[in-house]
Parts: sequence; C-alpha cells; structure tokens
Amino acid sequence: MSIINVKGTHDIIGKESELFHYVESLMRLISKQYAFSEVRPPVLEHSELFVRGVGESSDVVRKEMYTFLDKGERSLTLRPEFTAGIMRLIVQNKLYATNDLPLKYFYLGPVFRYERPQLGRYRQFNQFGVECVGGNSYFYDVETISLAYDILKSLKLNNVVIKINTLGDEESRNNYRLALKEFFKEHIIDMCEDCKQRYELNPLRILDCKVPEDQEIVKNAPKMSDYLTNESKERFQRVLSALEQLEIPYIVDDGLVRGLDYYSETVFEFHYTSQNGNNYGAIGAGGHYSHLVKEVGGPDIPGIGFSFGVERIVSVLKDDNILNEEKIDDRVDFYVMPIGEENLNYAYEIARKIRHLDFSVDICLEKAKVPAMFKRAEKKNVRFAIIIGENEVKERKIIIKNLASQQQIELSEDKIFSDIYDIYDQCFSCDGDCENCR
Amino acid sequence: MSIINVKGTHDIIGKESELFHYVESLMRLISKQYAFSEVRPPVLEHSELFVRGVGESSDVVRKEMYTFLDKGERSLTLRPEFTAGIMRLIVQNKLYATNDLPLKYFYLGPVFRYERPQLGRYRQFNQFGVECVGGNSYFYDVETISLAYDILKSLKLNNVVIKINTLGDEESRNNYRLALKEFFKEHIIDMCEDCKQRYELNPLRILDCKVPEDQEIVKNAPKMSDYLTNESKERFQRVLSALEQLEIPYIVDDGLVRGLDYYSETVFEFHYTSQNGNNYGAIGAGGHYSHLVKEVGGPDIPGIGFSFGVERIVSVLKDDNILNEEKIDDRVDFYVMPIGEENLNYAYEIARKIRHLDFSVDICLEKAKVPAMFKRAEKKNVRFAIIIGENEVKERKIIIKNLASQQQIELSEDKIFSDIYDIYDQCFSCDGDCENCR
Repeated sequence: MSIINVKGTHDIIGKESELFHYVESLMRLISKQYAFSEVRPPVLEHSELFVRGVGESSDVVRKEMYTFLDKGERSLTLRPEFTAGIMRLIVQNKLYATNDLPLKYFYLGPVFRYERPQLGRYRQFNQFGVECVGGNSYFYDVETISLAYDILKSLKLNNVVIKINTLGDEESRNNYRLALKEFFKEHIIDMCEDCKQRYELNPLRILDCKVPEDQEIVKNAPKMSDYLTNESKERFQRVLSALEQLEIPYIVDDGLVRGLDYYSETVFEFHYTSQNGNNYGAIGAGGHYSHLVKEVGGPDIPGIGFSFGVERIVSVLKDDNILNEEKIDDRVDFYVMPIGEENLNYAYEIARKIRHLDFSVDICLEKAKVPAMFKRAEKKNVRFAIIIGENEVKERKIIIKNLASQQQIELSEDKIFSDIYDIYDQCFSCDGDCENCR
Repeated sequence: MSIINVKGTHDIIGKESELFHYVESLMRLISKQYAFSEVRPPVLEHSELFVRGVGESSDVVRKEMYTFLDKGERSLTLRPEFTAGIMRLIVQNKLYATNDLPLKYFYLGPVFRYERPQLGRYRQFNQFGVECVGGNSYFYDVETISLAYDILKSLKLNNVVIKINTLGDEESRNNYRLALKEFFKEHIIDMCEDCKQRYELNPLRILDCKVPEDQEIVKNAPKMSDYLTNESKERFQRVLSALEQLEIPYIVDDGLVRGLDYYSETVFEFHYTSQNGNNYGAIGAGGHYSHLVKEVGGPDIPGIGFSFGVERIVSVLKDDNILNEEKIDDRVDFYVMPIGEENLNYAYEIARKIRHLDFSVDICLEKAKVPAMFKRAEKKNVRFAIIIGENEVKERKIIIKNLASQQQIELSEDKIFSDIYDIYDQCFSCDGDCENCR
C-alpha cells in the first residue's frame, strides 16, 4: 500500500519549483539592494518562545501550533512564524550590542500551522519576510513598506493594494481598549465564543472576527483614530506623507488591527485581486512593535517587519499568468546521444566537458535507438542534440544538431571550449542559414 | 528571563548565512548543469514512511526520529533525511508514468535527528542531495558520483577522498549475510547491545559498529567481495573503469556498508581531511537502491542518490580558509547620509533610485552627526558615501565620496541613471586620480 503526504502539506515539483525559486531569488535580490542580510533561525524552538513572542491570546498560539514533547520532555514547537525566533536570535547572540542599530534581517523558509486545510491554505507553507530592529525613526516603517512594495512591483504584481492603519502608542491603545470594552459590554453576550474570550484577553481582536453577525456589531464600534495621542497621529501622518512622496499608493483602513498582540503604531497589509477577479485577500502583512525584543529577554528596543506567504504569491503569479517561460529556468541546452554502449565513455566525457562550461547537459544512458533518443530530446525541450557514434569516437569529434532548424554541424573535441558558446548563440536564433549551420 | 535555542539547533547569521547561500547556490548551479531539477517534499511526513523507507533496523529510525502525534492523533515525523520523502513524492504524483525515466531530482533543506549533540553535529541541519530514479544503466552511478565530485571540486575542496564499495545484488547480499551470521555466531555474546540487535535484524550493520572492541572482531569478518555474484562484480568493475576514464579518483573500501537498509550494488562516501589535518570523516555519502520505490507503493524501479551535510561542508570551507571575501556577497555599495531630518525624504528617494539600479544601498535614518555617520559607513564596509544636505536638495544633486580614496564628486540627480555605473567601476579601483575623482 502506498503512503501519502500529511494532510495540509504539499509537494513542490518541476516548473512549480522553478517558480518558487524565481520568486525567492527576487526577494533575496531586492532585500540585498535594501542592505538587509539573511538570518536562519531553526524550525524548532521552545514552545514558551511563541507564547511570549506571538502572544497567548492569538489564534496561532491558542489553536494552531504543532507542539510536542521531545525525548527529554521539553515542550518544542515547529515555528508558526519567524518573528519570535528572530527576536530570540538577536537577544541570544547579543546582536544589538555588537552592531550599529538598526539590525536589518530577512528570512525565508517553512512555517507550520495546524489550520483547517482549505484552498490555498497549507499546514506547512513558506514565508519570506524582514525585521528591522532597533531603529528610532518612523522612517523605518517607510523603508520596510518600500522594500515590500518593490518586491511586489518587480514580480509585476501591479494590482497590489496597500492597506495601512495605526494602532498608536500604548496610551492610545489603552484608551481605545477601554472604549471597546465599554462599547461591547452590552453586545458580547450575543457574540461568538471566540469573541467572548477576546473580550477578556484583548478586545482589539474582536475587530478581526469573521462571523457575519459579529461583523454587523463591529461596524458600529468606536474607531481607533478617535483615541490616538497627538504623537501617534503625527507619526502616522509623517509615514503617510513619505509614502506619497515615494509614489507608493495606500489606503488608510481604520478597521485594520492585525491578529497579533505585539503590534503598535503602523500596521499594514498587501491585498491582491487577480486580473481574473479572484480576491486573494492579504498576500503579506506586517507592522511596528515596541517591546518584542524585551519580551524575549533583550533590551527595550522597537522594530518593524512584514512577511509574505510564498505559496500565496506563487498562486497569484500563476493566476495572473505573469511569468513568461524565459524566467523559468528549466532549460536543457544539450542532449547527448551515444549510439551504442561502446561509445558511452567518450559521450560522457563530452557531456561533462560541456557541463563544465556552464551549460545544462543531459545524456541518454539507456539503451535506445536513435529515433527514440530524438523523441526524448523533444520531450525535454532541449535546444541541441549531440550525436556520438563509432566514427565520432574514432576521430574525437561530435555532431551538434539544432533541433529547431534541424541543421547540424561537426565540431572536433578540441574546439568545444572555444566554439561552443558561439554555436549556442548563433544557431539557436538563426533559421539554419548562419555560417555555423550548413 | 531570556529564552534560548533548542539544544542541538543553531542560528545562521551574517557572513555565515552568506557562506551557506554561496554553497547552496553552487550546488544548485551544478545540479542544473547535470539536468537535475529541484523537488521540495514537506518537512512533515507520516512516521510509517520512514519506517518503511529508511528501514526499521536503522539507527535513524530506532533512536533518532522526532516523532509525535498531531491533533488528529496521526503519528508524524520530522524528516530525518530526504530520500524516503522523495520516493513518496514520485509514487504519489505518478512521476514515473508521466516522464521519461530516469527522474533526476535534487533537494535542499533542513532535516532533523535526535542525536547526542557533539562538535559539528546538529539535531537540525541542512542536507543537499540528489536522487536519480528509474534508470537501468550502471552509468547512473557514475553520473551521480561525477555530479557530487564536481560540486566538491568547484567548492575547491581538493582533499576529497571518495571511498567506494559494492554490496552486490540480492543474491550476493544473502550469501554474505549468511556468512556473517556464521562468523559472528561465536562472537556476538561478547559484543555491544546494538550489535546483538543488528545480528538479528541485519548483520551487515555490525560492520558499521563504532565500539573499539567490536571493531577488533569485525576486522576478521568475511569480506563482501568474496560473496559477489559475477554480475555484480562486473557491474562494479564497469563503474570503476568509467570513473578512471573521467579522472575521478577513488579508493575501494571493502568495509563500507552504509547505515541504511535499502542500499544495493554501488555505495560511496566522500571523506575529508582539512589542510590543518582535521579529519571530518564523511561529508557526504550515497548509494544505489533496488526496491525503494516499490517499498513505498510504486513500481519496482531502481535508483541512486547521495546527500551532503551542508553544515559539514561549511565547516570544512572555513577550516580550509578557501573562500575569499569576494565570493561572500555582504557588500553594501552606497551609504546615504542625510544631513538634517528635513532632507530625509529627498535622501530616501535617492537611495531608492540607486537600489533600483541593483546596487546595495543603506541609508542613515537615525539622527546622527556627520562624523558618526562616516563611522557607521566604515563599520559597514561600504564603498561610497552619499552626502545630502540642504544645498544638495535645493539643487537636486548628490555628493558621492569614495571611502577608499577619500575623493568626492558631485552628480546631478538626473545623471544618476546614466553615470552611476561608471563612477562605481572607476572610482573603486582608482587611487582617486581618475577623471571622476578630482
């Protein structure tokens, strides 16, 4: 009997894996342009880290973590997100003390959430994101949003809508929380069980509730913007005006509170609707935090970060049909066809020689007739076949056949190094009438 | 109180993360040259997969797996290796039926083993490897070893020793197992507990025992080579002679059996001793398998694969001091210094503009005096400072200072696009006397 994958996980194969690699390479490239460097915290952390770092009132911690005891009876958790792990990494390695602040890091890798599997939602999926930690200027909010926006733009995701809001400073949020408690007092009895818990732990969360009846009540709740301190208002205005100057479009969304406890001041989401009208909701999100580093044992320095779901972005790219084949590097340049097993060793030497010149070269090592080999070459979508028979071995040469033009030329082995680039460039684009093709 | 990392895991930061990326990029590049494409099976699999795919007599399955029950009471395991997952992926997605064989895949990512932590051994570490599945020629063994060897060569790991052996076909191994049982019958009572279990489950494993007293006994055990069928002998000879022709050096090691149940015919290891004489043992290993695809529910087709430990390879590279700074891409090209907060918006526009030209640009967003900003620039090892004060904003220009030559030039904003590449190239190598530096 065959064994299948774990529910909610998925295999990435073929063109799709090239697409993931393309997206990730671009994220890496643009992070480098912004002078962010990579960090890799482990997948496994002590469960306590996420309870403290993500917040015990969050859905993620309450319901969605893969937590288990290891053989030493320690409670471990597969990271449901990267931020807490990176805060731990910064504190444990004292990076705040040995580097100029802010620390600017990006990350890339799998995260794990025990969610109900649904279309486009996985229990293991990949996140890319950044954290900018220890900077005191509101302008790091701009820097971080600008980086995210530039990534989406260079992926040609032109329908992005940036929703932005401010949760204000602690004073603003305390005032707002009181106002929300007051407002929901008479409604909470009619609201869902989750909201009842949220009412006790963190009433801001109620604003995120997805239950339609509750959303009706939420509509009339007080607005954050009416409870902001002047400092927070002014800070937010500066962020917005810098975004305008950089021509980064946004929509202020008063209802945006984000599902994590640690946010303060600026929060934002990247929403996407494909050309076909499919609404993907948020494909990425982030915000500013004031005390997260302290929460895991470090100094009291603020930070800001965001993350993208890589699977989400790949889906959007496919839906919008944005990527042309050229960007997907699954080309095989040459296919070497040894005619007869006795010519295999020479054929393999040739294949390896051309590989060393940084071409992608496959070779038929199966016993196969010539027409069958050409069929294989076609299926692999190779550009050139290299035919090696008795005669070629004897005279130490090769026959190169352009599969598009069907023209072929001979090349002596000692000319491979000097001539193969030219042949590759010229013959691929000509119709068989360039000087290499006769 | 601060939370630390889970024992046996490690953080990858700064130059080290660049080193990991460099190594992985090279592995990816050379795999592409060999026409292998990437696959990504999930980290989580049903435990049953590894019991069947890795083998229940293996140390990995018996002692080292991170296994737990999820909320649906399913027994899941964090992959201790990739091969079993890739076999599952091939079978489940019926890749053997929709593609010409062999399937040629590479992989890259974290694996998890609950081992006793020791120098250079981690409980979460990264593996790179390949699987070549469904080919019938012995030459795929050569292809796979050649790929591994080319990767190590291009990493400039010149002290690699390839140890190779054959375990023969089923008949050979059955005969050999009987001979081993016969030989160890009188010794097993004096040997370690593990060996006693191995004696029952798979006596070949005894040859891998690390207990010194047991190794003394093993020395006199019968040799695999005396029990090979003629077919297996001949097959092995062909592999060896092809390696010779390709000038891939090897040592036949009669005692090499590899710690996994599924191997047959060719097995091999890559051993390394650094210039300083540190013996790293095997930094990679692999072998041929006959029935692994069938074992997880697919057709009875053979395969061959190997894996490298990325952490091991990074350690070796550091020890041998092989990588020069150039290959480690942690450069920051420009550091933008706004003098006064009122010039921040313009400064940031400039930074973003130069980032879009694919340079790495950092910007000082903190309130800092000019000398402090230069100190930051120095620490970051940037090539050029860009100074932006009141005057620059007014005239929409920038001052670029080469930190090596200390020369500076002015550039008007509208010339950035056309001139910055030249300035970058010329001023970095000159001593301040090229035409851009006055």
